[in-house]
Order: sequence, then structure tokens, then C-alpha cells
Amino acid sequence: MGDIDLTDRAAIAGIGATEFSKASGRSEFRLACEAIASALEDCGIERAEVDGLVTFSMDTNSEIEIARAMGMGELTFFSRIGYGGGAACGVLQQAMLAVATGTAQVVVVYRAFNERSGVRFGSGAQSARPAIPNTDTARSAWTSPYGLHTPAQQVAMFAQRYLHTYGGTTADFGRISVIDRTHAATNPKAWFYEQPITLEDHQSSRWISEPLRLLDCCQETDGAQAIVVTSLERARDLRQPPVRLAAAAQGSGSNQQMMTSYYDRDLSQLPEMGLVGRQLFASAGIGTDDVDVAILYDHFTPFVLVQLEELGFCAPGEAAALAASGELEMGGSLPLNPHGGQLGEAYLHGMNGIAEGVRQIRGTAANQVADVEHVLVTAGTGVPTSGAILRVDR
Amino acid sequence: MGDIDLTDRAAIAGIGATEFSKASGRSEFRLACEAIASALEDCGIERAEVDGLVTFSMDTNSEIEIARAMGMGELTFFSRIGYGGGAACGVLQQAMLAVATGTAQVVVVYRAFNERSGVRFGSGAQSARPAIPNTDTARSAWTSPYGLHTPAQQVAMFAQRYLHTYGGTTADFGRISVIDRTHAATNPKAWFYEQPITLEDHQSSRWISEPLRLLDCCQETDGAQAIVVTSLERARDLRQPPVRLAAAAQGSGSNQQMMTSYYDRDLSQLPEMGLVGRQLFASAGIGTDDVDVAILYDHFTPFVLVQLEELGFCAPGEAAALAASGELEMGGSLPLNPHGGQLGEAYLHGMNGIAEGVRQIRGTAANQVADVEHVLVTAGTGVPTSGAILRVDR
Repeated sequence: MGDIDLTDRAAIAGIGATEFSKASGRSEFRLACEAIASALEDCGIERAEVDGLVTFSMDTNSEIEIARAMGMGELTFFSRIGYGGGAACGVLQQAMLAVATGTAQVVVVYRAFNERSGVRFGSGAQSARPAIPNTDTARSAWTSPYGLHTPAQQVAMFAQRYLHTYGGTTADFGRISVIDRTHAATNPKAWFYEQPITLEDHQSSRWISEPLRLLDCCQETDGAQAIVVTSLERARDLRQPPVRLAAAAQGSGSNQQMMTSYYDRDLSQLPEMGLVGRQLFASAGIGTDDVDVAILYDHFTPFVLVQLEELGFCAPGEAAALAASGELEMGGSLPLNPHGGQLGEAYLHGMNGIAEGVRQIRGTAANQVADVEHVLVTAGTGVPTSGAILRVDR
Repeated sequence: MGDIDLTDRAAIAGIGATEFSKASGRSEFRLACEAIASALEDCGIERAEVDGLVTFSMDTNSEIEIARAMGMGELTFFSRIGYGGGAACGVLQQAMLAVATGTAQVVVVYRAFNERSGVRFGSGAQSARPAIPNTDTARSAWTSPYGLHTPAQQVAMFAQRYLHTYGGTTADFGRISVIDRTHAATNPKAWFYEQPITLEDHQSSRWISEPLRLLDCCQETDGAQAIVVTSLERARDLRQPPVRLAAAAQGSGSNQQMMTSYYDRDLSQLPEMGLVGRQLFASAGIGTDDVDVAILYDHFTPFVLVQLEELGFCAPGEAAALAASGELEMGGSLPLNPHGGQLGEAYLHGMNGIAEGVRQIRGTAANQVADVEHVLVTAGTGVPTSGAILRVDR
């Protein structure tokens, strides 16, 4: 009795989001409900059919309050994934596991927050003191006294080491920003619609935590995204063409910590993303050449470079050259974040990237890549993370 | 392409716990590590082989800190289940899903807390104000002003209605306490070892929140429990006889809230547990008559009666008679909580009940039932919940 193959059993049937803003003017709960309603409307599934809800540990909207407010009825599956944006494809994997095994028939994954007008992650750990001490607060006691309060500060050390190891400059980071903002400029849903930047803009933006500049750090967003997962068979009878879940996987490295794993042997790598990539390609039965669009988590530009290396799109230290080659732009061999990514469209803990992957396969993206068969999507980097490969249904 | 059948693919290979106390004298993190070390030692699996960790949303010990501290290495599966004790068998289901699909090879589920010497759940919601407001705090704003602060207060309303609906008395609740404490009295690991109670003791104990007396409410415990899940094949090669995971399921009712679902049409029922039971029996392919031992979550005695009804062991309103019949005692047709339950052994959010189910099937319990083939275990009641059926391997 071998392992069960989950490949292509489940599919994304619907996607829905609120507008992406800096001040939504309404509760996170309302944002979640709006996004879920929109995603169900997208595919034509009734609310009462939803029997599974999955979200991030950090989400403030409990499954049962969502279910009651939306008239969903009984649930047979509910779970959470931790570690902030690292959960984005982990929640998708949960939905896939539930649907493929019949544990639930229709699973909605969601993420909603007022991350700009409400609690801002970048304000540092001291603003989010928990009611009950935990291992996260214990860990930060070792680093906070040295100025490592915010994600940007934590990632800066990694970025500095990456430049040291491979001899790069901050312009290497800037090219990722330019690509994302160029794509966002032609995506009407993007916050930075019609606001492209140049490499000079990047190089002249202020330091946030050296070597990270303002334009290396993703924006802060108020908004919500929901995604509906059901069986491939069911999805074929719905309003939208199914997007197959070819693979979804999680990964945590041997020395995994949050944002930067200080005990890793090499601070220039993200072994957890390599672990995710190996699982994804093996499960989906494809290689890097088969990936038509890469939606790589881009809360901080240096981590996009390292992801390209860890996922095998280039060798360690060669991502800067890849970014400079033009291949990551529209028309290149591996278009990166055609929606503009989190730097350009919205910072929604990676969930908007999954939706973009769906649009690319449906052929309905603002910046559409031709003939997309496979999209690779990744989740938050520097933390325990996850990824998925979406596949066209034909 | 139908649903995948998960029955009997995964097995519990190891169990481990700390002592159960009122003041552990050490951190929750240390308790978690001790329990996990003990569970791995029980089955003989190396720490480095663990590639999945699952716990409760409420647990303060992050998967990555556990993995690092114990030298586990890379993880390919990590998830959390919410709703307090309702998660007990939900985490087991997560492990089953991961192992059956090859997402992880060895998954450890754990729960650790200093629930007596640290943060006491019964101290009321106001002591656990979160750093970030959420739907749980929003909900409690509607009930806290009316005195519904603690779980006991919230369950009391349900208990009152149950007595009203079926015409019972608080002695019906007391008989559950007496059974649990009688069993605990001969279990050396139980906090109330050698301390049985009589129905008179129950009836003369003080009110906590009428109609709940002190002896209707489970104790508070410091401690930790861990459980190791792997494939049935692998488990057969380890130190202990495998305990098959015949089924595990979650359930949340149509009007689900926390502790008491005030909008339910009938406050004398727990529809979420009925939902769990129907899934369990269908998946495992057995009926109520096949259950040799019932480990029913007993944080408050009235909910044990309702569980017996929801799970189909008797008709609605007939559980009091079943409890008075002697059938739930050792030697009866359905021995209840032979370890003493949470009222008698320890309050460990239901995880110690799973361990007792394992011992009953191994034949190593302090109060051993003869020839156990199937054990039904349930999780926290009044909340979104879960259950499991454990099966002997032969």
C-alpha cells in the first residue's frame, strides 16, 4: 500500500478579492466575508455547500464566525497554517488534502487584514505582545535587543550576506522591484497601477535597513483574498475553467527560524524553499523548463533572487544575472509576477499571487502570458514556507 | 476518480507524556519536548526522522522551535487546529492525512501547557486579551456583559436547558463524575489516584455556576502529551504494536459558537458531535455496538451525557439512564474513560484520552478492558470538535 497520489485531483474553481487599499474603512471580518462571497460567485457554488474553511494562524477571522455570518452550515474541515505569509500555499495544500480524500467537498481558503490601517507588521514585535508568552516571544528576546525588531531589519542581515557571498550590488535587488512595478503599472487592480519605477528610482530611495531600500520592501495593504477548491470533476461543471492543483507542498529547514535563520550554515540560501521546490516538481512531474509563469513571494527583493536559485531556475549566485537578462519580464522565458507582485499589486500574504496564477491559466490576466500550462506560486520566504504548481485542465 | 479511502493507512506508533501536576516547575516548551522525546522513545523512531509536527492553535510552542531544539531537521508538514480541546482528534486527522498521502513520513502531534500554574482558562476572557482584536473577542462582547465569562458559566446555561428538556437532576451529571473518579482511583498516573468520590460527594460539592458543581468541572493540569503517527507498514516494524487510525473526523454545527451555541434550535444537543460520529462510523465501517471503550471528552459532565446521545449510544434524553445502568463502568458494555478522564486523570485538552485509547488497544492500560478492538475517542464539546476511532491491528 503505497502513498496516495494527490496530483490533479483537486482544482481551484473560484477566486475573489476585495479592492486593495491603504484604508479599507471596514473590519477585517467584513473584508473576509466579501472576498469569500466574491470567490463563490465567481464559480457559482452556493454558500451552503462550503464544508471546509482554512486560513492562516494569524488571521483574526474564525472559521465558525465566517460560516455563521455567511450561512454556510456544517463544516467537516477547518485548519490553520502558521508563520505568516509562509502559509499561502500551505492553506491550499490543506484544501487539496481535504478535497482529494473526501474529507470536505468544497473548501474555501481565505486571508483578510487591514495591514496598513490596522496592525502594521513592520511596527516591530513590541507592538504585538501576546496575552500568553510563547516560543516566538522567547526567541525574539535573543535578537530584539540588537535591533532586529522588524521583518526588514531581520532580512537586511541576510541580504548583506548574500551580496558579500556573490559579490553583487543593491542594483541586483532593484531590478526585481523594477520588474514588479513595471508589471503593476499595466494592472488596473494594482495599487501601483500606472506608476512604474526605474532602477534610478530604486537606487535613490531611502534606506529602510541597509542594504534594503524603501523600494526593496513590499507595500502594506488592506484587503482580502479567497480561493475556492473542489474536486476536478466538480470544477469542470462550474462557471470557470478548472485550474488543477498539480502539487502543493510545505517546507521548513533544518535550522529554521523566522525571517532569517541565524544558525544556517549559509545565510545566502533558503533551504526551506529548495525543499518545497523539490517536492513540487516531483509531485507535478515537471521541471523548471515547464514553468510558464513564476509567482514568487516578494515581500523583500533579495528573497526573490534566492528563490530563483533554490527552485533551480539558475545556479546559486546567478539570479542577479537572470533578473538583468530580461527573461523575467513579459515576453521573456519566465515572466515574474505579471500582476506586479506584492511590491506592485498588493501585500496580501501571498494569496493574491495564487489568484494571479489562476487568472494566467484561465487566460484572463491583465498582463496575460500566452499559452500558460503551468504556474509556480511560492509563499513567504525566510520563514517555514510553501509552494504550489497550478496546471491547465486539458 | 472517487474519494481516497484513508482508513487504516496510518497508525499510532508511539505515545509519551510528562507527569500530570498542578505546578510543573518548568516551561511549556520543556514539557512539549519531554513528551515528544518520550513518545519517540516509546516507538523507537529517531528524532531526525520526524518530518511533520501538528498542534493546537492555542499551543505556545512553535513547530520550528520544537524541531530545532530536538534536532529533527527538515519538516514537510506543519499545521494547527483551533478551538481549544476541540482540536484533539483534529490534529490526529491532520497526521493521518499527511502520512496516508506521503506528505510526511512521521508526524508528531503534541499539546503542552501549564494550565494550572500558568494561564488558567477558567479565569475568564478578560485575562487573555489579544494583542490584535479578532472575531472571538468581538463575539464575547455580546455575552461577557451578562456574566458569561468562563467556560463553566457558558456551559451552565446549556446544562440547565438539558435538565429542563429531559426532566433530569444534577445527580445525572454526578454519576459521570463518580465513574471517572472511580476509574482514576486505580490509575497510578491519574492526579486523583486513590481518591474516588461518591454521588453524595458530588451533590454536596459547591456550585461553580448553577447547575454545575465543583465536581462537574474537570481539573486544571500542567503537563504535555505527544503522539507519533506513521504508516501502518512502518508501525509494524517498531517497538509497539500499531494502533490503526480507522477514522478521524472534524465537525462544526450550523450555528456553531464557542462552548454554547446560543442560536441553536435546541440547546440540549451537540450537533457538531453528531456530525463527527456519523463520519467516524461510516469511515471505519463499524457501528456503536463495535465500540469496546469510549473515551469521551469530559471537561464538564453534562456534555458527556449529550455525547452518548449524539454518537448514537442511546436516544436523546436517555444518557442519564445509561450512566445509572452500570454499563459505563469497568465490566459494563461500554466502559467510559478507564483512565479516569479529564475529571480524574488530567485535563490535557483531550490528548491524554487518545493515549489511553492506544493503551487499551495495546492491552497495557492501568484499567484494562478485555479484548479491545475499537476505541472511540472524542475531543472538546460545545466547540467545533473532532473524534477518532482507533482499531487493533490484526
